[in-house]
Amino acid sequence: MKIKVTQEKLSKALNNVSRIAIGKVTLPILNNVLIRVDNKKVSLITTNLDMATINYLPVSDSEDGVITVPAKLIADFVSNLPKGEIVEISTKDNKITIKSGKYSSTINGTLADDFPEIPEIDETNAITYKINIDDFKTSVGQVIIAASNDLTRPALTGVFFNTDDKNTLAIASTDGYRLAEKKLINNVKSEAHAIVPSNSLQEVLRVISEDMEEVEISFDENLVRFRLGEIEIVSKLIDASYPDYKKLIPKDNNIKVTVKRDELIRVTKLAALFSRSVGGSIVCEAKAPNTFSVKSIANEFGENDSTLEVPVENEGKVNLNSRFLIDALNALDAPEIDFVFSDHITPILLKNKDDNRYIHIVMPLNV
Amino acid sequence: MKIKVTQEKLSKALNNVSRIAIGKVTLPILNNVLIRVDNKKVSLITTNLDMATINYLPVSDSEDGVITVPAKLIADFVSNLPKGEIVEISTKDNKITIKSGKYSSTINGTLADDFPEIPEIDETNAITYKINIDDFKTSVGQVIIAASNDLTRPALTGVFFNTDDKNTLAIASTDGYRLAEKKLINNVKSEAHAIVPSNSLQEVLRVISEDMEEVEISFDENLVRFRLGEIEIVSKLIDASYPDYKKLIPKDNNIKVTVKRDELIRVTKLAALFSRSVGGSIVCEAKAPNTFSVKSIANEFGENDSTLEVPVENEGKVNLNSRFLIDALNALDAPEIDFVFSDHITPILLKNKDDNRYIHIVMPLNV
Repeated sequence: MKIKVTQEKLSKALNNVSRIAIGKVTLPILNNVLIRVDNKKVSLITTNLDMATINYLPVSDSEDGVITVPAKLIADFVSNLPKGEIVEISTKDNKITIKSGKYSSTINGTLADDFPEIPEIDETNAITYKINIDDFKTSVGQVIIAASNDLTRPALTGVFFNTDDKNTLAIASTDGYRLAEKKLINNVKSEAHAIVPSNSLQEVLRVISEDMEEVEISFDENLVRFRLGEIEIVSKLIDASYPDYKKLIPKDNNIKVTVKRDELIRVTKLAALFSRSVGGSIVCEAKAPNTFSVKSIANEFGENDSTLEVPVENEGKVNLNSRFLIDALNALDAPEIDFVFSDHITPILLKNKDDNRYIHIVMPLNV
Repeated sequence: MKIKVTQEKLSKALNNVSRIAIGKVTLPILNNVLIRVDNKKVSLITTNLDMATINYLPVSDSEDGVITVPAKLIADFVSNLPKGEIVEISTKDNKITIKSGKYSSTINGTLADDFPEIPEIDETNAITYKINIDDFKTSVGQVIIAASNDLTRPALTGVFFNTDDKNTLAIASTDGYRLAEKKLINNVKSEAHAIVPSNSLQEVLRVISEDMEEVEISFDENLVRFRLGEIEIVSKLIDASYPDYKKLIPKDNNIKVTVKRDELIRVTKLAALFSRSVGGSIVCEAKAPNTFSVKSIANEFGENDSTLEVPVENEGKVNLNSRFLIDALNALDAPEIDFVFSDHITPILLKNKDDNRYIHIVMPLNV
């Protein structure tokens, strides 16, 4: 095997793939990256058994072959080589030699035979969507924060891709305390219902770079594949049914307050400082004609009460977890947002003003 | 008590003092900041019993009084207030009220009577040095990295200020594996021998800001005081005798190699990647007429061998801990450095080329 490539390209590709190959003690070969040159096409592959990252590497000069080597070691080595130089990789007797100018190293590799098989999507039965990369990145970021860490309810640890709503592809996550939904694409032709593990999506977000324009997402029965430029990430889907989250979206909230997002973030943070000893609980209250206040509950540390002047028609009050409210406000991205609620037991709904594509629901606290 | 001051000034001062007041469960009042207005002069004071930070706050409008409040809470609160606004602090019945425009909070305070006494330096018997702040910051940074964490040898956990060498104030640290010494000021009049705790010095480094020009350092028998702008840090000295570190400085090393610092850092890092399984051990070797090589010892992962082309007169070889070598190279700051050694059992000496103010000694490994 031989590969000749610039340090920058090789280092970037190794960094993209090496993250999921770190610290697998149970099956040491999972710490390795598979380097394959097949028909002059170079690919770097890692897997953690749940997902695989494949980075194709366009090179001008190569000879076929295959080997696996410790991913972190080779990634660290190449990243410390001088920028702007050509790196040459060659193999001999299960050893890989990496040369760049006066720098040279030999890394002991392992036969590729033991490397786990990389799952491939069933192209004939797959459905595919294409999305602008910036829109995808923002949207996944807005939704994934509401996903659960609780492994006893696997469905909730993922992001639910679905077309439940009138030919619209939406993504949603909920951990039972909050729910985020974003409409991704309108007028889609094919239906999808698939739960993608949050970890796999985080990995997709991490490899996104400025030169990418679009992500292609394909689902078959069991797998999802993300194609971004030279990178493919293939992941198992979560095999579970997603709860009917639409039921959690409040329909009849009749108190709508439109506030400046920055100001609401500030007053929520100030109140949150005083609510640490009461589990982060704060009180939001709308009073006609023009007062929206955010308060901490008085406690051993003191108390805080901030007031925003905004038009208020209907009055009401709700207790919320300040952390969830701050998360939601950070995920919204318009200068003004709608805070829509009803009473102290109904979930509140947050969204950008004049925009229904992204909604964030937070359950109230009842202390 | 009353204080009127800009958010920026107050927030900066609270951040300066609040760091040492965090998480003291044994004596809760140590989590508090003492706010005192005495004769219209405002000071913010925290202590962890080993040291105290005092930040004077020039304000135009104040009324005398004193109170203590949780340092982190008030620091976080003020830092979240809008920039550029005036903040008003007032007290009533052990409660402190902080107002800024429409934002207001009440924090429960504690009587200042329980606050520990802040140690004061004995001015009549004190000796004082003044040093340019940039020089001080660089120098302490260069030396403190060699200090020990081993609390069983308290002297080694500090930085030793001494005038052992011909009216020169020097600072030195050693953990037994390496030693760093920097000459701070020549032609000093008064003698000093004092071990300053590394933690206290770290705190001094942290409060340094761009507008400071000079640090004034005063020692009495038991204490050191650093004055930097409006800030004073007073710390206990370590009550122990410092080992005669000059004995560790090799005098007869006869192999001197002058190399580019960046290149030596790079080859050391590359070799270090392969030396993780052998405790970071690498081999440095000089061969006449022009080869200086840095190698890992071949092991399960592979091996690395890099060569720098530099004039070599005397030949030799030494095993070093790569981490200590990288630390030393990072602490040096000239483009070219001298690597001076002798054999495999004598400590090596590193210094900037043509400059003896800073020396860094590393003990060899004998594996």
